Amino acid sequence: MKRIAIDMDEVMADFNKKHLALFNRDFGEQLTTDDLHGKKLRELRPELVKEIRSYLLDPTYFRDLEVMEHCQEVVEELAQSYEIFVATAAMDFPTSFNAKYEWLKEHFPFIDDQNIVFCGNKSIIHADYLIDDNVRQLERFSGEGILFTSPHNVNVTGYPRVHNWLDVRDYFL
Amino acid sequence: MKRIAIDMDEVMADFNKKHLALFNRDFGEQLTTDDLHGKKLRELRPELVKEIRSYLLDPTYFRDLEVMEHCQEVVEELAQSYEIFVATAAMDFPTSFNAKYEWLKEHFPFIDDQNIVFCGNKSIIHADYLIDDNVRQLERFSGEGILFTSPHNVNVTGYPRVHNWLDVRDYFL
Repeated sequence: MKRIAIDMDEVMADFNKKHLALFNRDFGEQLTTDDLHGKKLRELRPELVKEIRSYLLDPTYFRDLEVMEHCQEVVEELAQSYEIFVATAAMDFPTSFNAKYEWLKEHFPFIDDQNIVFCGNKSIIHADYLIDDNVRQLERFSGEGILFTSPHNVNVTGYPRVHNWLDVRDYFL
Repeated sequence: MKRIAIDMDEVMADFNKKHLALFNRDFGEQLTTDDLHGKKLRELRPELVKEIRSYLLDPTYFRDLEVMEHCQEVVEELAQSYEIFVATAAMDFPTSFNAKYEWLKEHFPFIDDQNIVFCGNKSIIHADYLIDDNVRQLERFSGEGILFTSPHNVNVTGYPRVHNWLDVRDYFL
């Protein structure tokens, strides 16, 4: 059985939506994901990089992110034919461990604890495929990297691209 | 540069010493590691398996374990010639995330966050070597497994064995 490793933020969990909403609320802006095409929020507002990061240091930040559309059903389908691991760079935000774990238990109870990985550099992941929005992680990964579209990576080339979870289903099933 | 993944409990951290001390205190026993030759505490006292596990569910349990003798100096030496990752089955005890992370930051500040992995099944670890006391993890690992001696594994054969961190130094340097 081939193994698929799946990133969390911006792949399973809608990271941007909450981040933008908090930022707009606090800084009186009306940014949308359209404004993030080709860049991250911190690149769009470099003068506020500290404030932008501070939301993510809140231990509860990652607890109530929305699940990406169709993610639950497609991951559950994939699990019939592939070994599924979740591989999230939780070490980027060590305050996020408990929220990320509880989020997975709530929304993906069928994923066994033994198949959850909190890591940093994903070159450590031993899998056939990695679905990730972060090109830096795909570059390091030893298997086949699949780029999950996120506003910041729309200009990236060189990887098979999936735009959403229905694309993931088409790619693998 | 070849990569070594290193387990925490019973390899970097003296898990048994604290576990036995708490158990002896609460159950009026005087067990030592000699009593654990070839087995785990839960196998020696199967009627108390729930109580024995309960210590490990305390979120602070893993925070103040002693560092195994010579571990810090040898890991720091190894890091000159090898890429070092810590790979701990923290998913076995999801209450342990923060304590394990803080313990690493205190005792191994030279290990970058990006090289820390909290996982379950270590078949997900992509490394050349894994130093672990748990034969089940070595069986799953795709690289070269090295068995770190712990009372429970003294009868295990089939893997290169290191008895302590001076042995690890000899093996790799």
